[in-house]
Amino acid sequence: MQTDALVIGAGPVGLFQAFQLGLLGLSVQIVDALPQAGGQCIELYADKPILDIPGILECSGRELTERLLAQLAPLAPGWHLGHEVTRLARRDDGRFDAACADGTAFDAGAVFICAGVGAFQPRRLKAPGLEGLEGRHLHYHPATDPAALDCFAGQRVLVIGGDEAALVRAAALAERPGQPPVQLMHRRDVLQADATLLTRIDALRQAGHLVFHAAQLASARQDEAGRLLQVDITLSDGGLRTLDLDTLIVCQGLSPRLGPIADWGLAMDRKLLVADPATFETSAPGIHAAGDIVSYPGKKKLILCGFHEATLAAHAAHERLRPHERGPLLYTSSSTLLQQRLGRHG
Amino acid sequence: MQTDALVIGAGPVGLFQAFQLGLLGLSVQIVDALPQAGGQCIELYADKPILDIPGILECSGRELTERLLAQLAPLAPGWHLGHEVTRLARRDDGRFDAACADGTAFDAGAVFICAGVGAFQPRRLKAPGLEGLEGRHLHYHPATDPAALDCFAGQRVLVIGGDEAALVRAAALAERPGQPPVQLMHRRDVLQADATLLTRIDALRQAGHLVFHAAQLASARQDEAGRLLQVDITLSDGGLRTLDLDTLIVCQGLSPRLGPIADWGLAMDRKLLVADPATFETSAPGIHAAGDIVSYPGKKKLILCGFHEATLAAHAAHERLRPHERGPLLYTSSSTLLQQRLGRHG
Repeated sequence: MQTDALVIGAGPVGLFQAFQLGLLGLSVQIVDALPQAGGQCIELYADKPILDIPGILECSGRELTERLLAQLAPLAPGWHLGHEVTRLARRDDGRFDAACADGTAFDAGAVFICAGVGAFQPRRLKAPGLEGLEGRHLHYHPATDPAALDCFAGQRVLVIGGDEAALVRAAALAERPGQPPVQLMHRRDVLQADATLLTRIDALRQAGHLVFHAAQLASARQDEAGRLLQVDITLSDGGLRTLDLDTLIVCQGLSPRLGPIADWGLAMDRKLLVADPATFETSAPGIHAAGDIVSYPGKKKLILCGFHEATLAAHAAHERLRPHERGPLLYTSSSTLLQQRLGRHG
Repeated sequence: MQTDALVIGAGPVGLFQAFQLGLLGLSVQIVDALPQAGGQCIELYADKPILDIPGILECSGRELTERLLAQLAPLAPGWHLGHEVTRLARRDDGRFDAACADGTAFDAGAVFICAGVGAFQPRRLKAPGLEGLEGRHLHYHPATDPAALDCFAGQRVLVIGGDEAALVRAAALAERPGQPPVQLMHRRDVLQADATLLTRIDALRQAGHLVFHAAQLASARQDEAGRLLQVDITLSDGGLRTLDLDTLIVCQGLSPRLGPIADWGLAMDRKLLVADPATFETSAPGIHAAGDIVSYPGKKKLILCGFHEATLAAHAAHERLRPHERGPLLYTSSSTLLQQRLGRHG
């Protein structure tokens, strides 16, 4: 897949990175390890208030993500969610070959690493009998939009986890008409979420749409075709119970992992990428970085600083990739070209 | 007036500069040469769409100003609009003495120059008989909010100018119940503004609330007490007309002027202040700069970059002024202290 720009990370800074690149007329492909955009904004503070985005009195991490997605939409970047760029190599012609584990490959003019604290990796479930189920009958932190949950319609689902990530998914599924009762399992009897969500879970339990088990997974059983049949769980009182299931949804937390980025030979300082504050280029020409993953004198890990870093990175790359387009800075308030790119005319 | 921080300029970057300083617990005084906040956002593109503020799909210069003012409000900085800092001197104890032409004086721990393209100065009206009228019967680009226009209630007003700044003020006055017909004068027969405003002006002319003259000021007459009595105007056909008046409002354009800032001995590069991108400190320790007035490698004159510059400037000053408060970066999404400063608790 040929592209001017490959953006790694779809958190707030990655989204604005794509916006600035698109505004400059560059084509963009976005890759993120998570199944949805938003990064830390969605995984760590989806419902917490952010009060220091300039001009936005208050917004949650989720709302900020939605706002940035809406702003980016007219520029129509390519999306590759649930993918991780595992290989990145500079070619002799100065362009980059990048590839994901599943074989998705990019031929990119410039690369933008907006990977925040790294790719979020789910804590894995370990028990005998789970081999080969992942992606088919075992899902880690699946996306929470209704369309993504559609694929579990009518299935007998066990959600494993005790915090907001697990409870949101269990509640959304249990509230679907025609869904068999959803099983929710956590090793302790205490669930952690805000009062509204806990009330929602209580109501679903009362109505019989959700069944809670304070237990841990002992083992799973598959049929000859590799379909999940049953799991055995160990209750907190030591008893054993067997559940007939179609699907396991596991939300036991996400840990950021810098992953393959650490192997690309880029200069680093305490696990962060060293970047030039004039261009936000890393030690490798053509590879830029912005947001929480970057280090330079004075750096503050604030979203609004990432927006600036992404902007200078986009301009520097544009000047390198399209030297003939060099000219005075254009403004969205006065440039018909920029307004057209954002779908404001015709 | 003792303050931790003196912010020069109340454009979008100056407003966010004050926000970041207040969020860090520093006291702030804001000075701007214009009678209202907003700077270029209000003077140059009040009603034009801005499409590249992160997370804000579209807003006018006026709306951005209002949003930043609302965000800043709980931090309650001191305001000195219609003032220009003319003198700035570093004291032996490292603090700064600053003063405005009218004698307002500040004793500040740090100074932040967010003066954009400089202080906006109105193009002056020249004619015999105007001596001593300014500020009493002659006003240049007065603020446009209803409260500011209240002081012209019931007066016979001549507005001079042919573009949006003049027309907005003429229309707002002419639409006030009980106001005598407003006179509008421009040297040419063609008025320049958007279609909505021109339609509004036409309707007011039809209704007799506004009278237009294609003419230029010849002279003014005052009584012995220095009150404006009349003006003579030269019509475009050469004729002379006399208008009985209480007040002249002049909107013949604003030109930015770097003014006294150029005399403070700060290192400059092509009329811009050289700043360190780690701290946005100028060549003088304790004097920071952010926004369109600052120069550093890679600088782009974009509002969102000014927000970042102001943020790093605030943190650098905070570390210098309150070294004992040094600690990990606090976030508005999780810090009760920051939330309290923004009026979110109790």
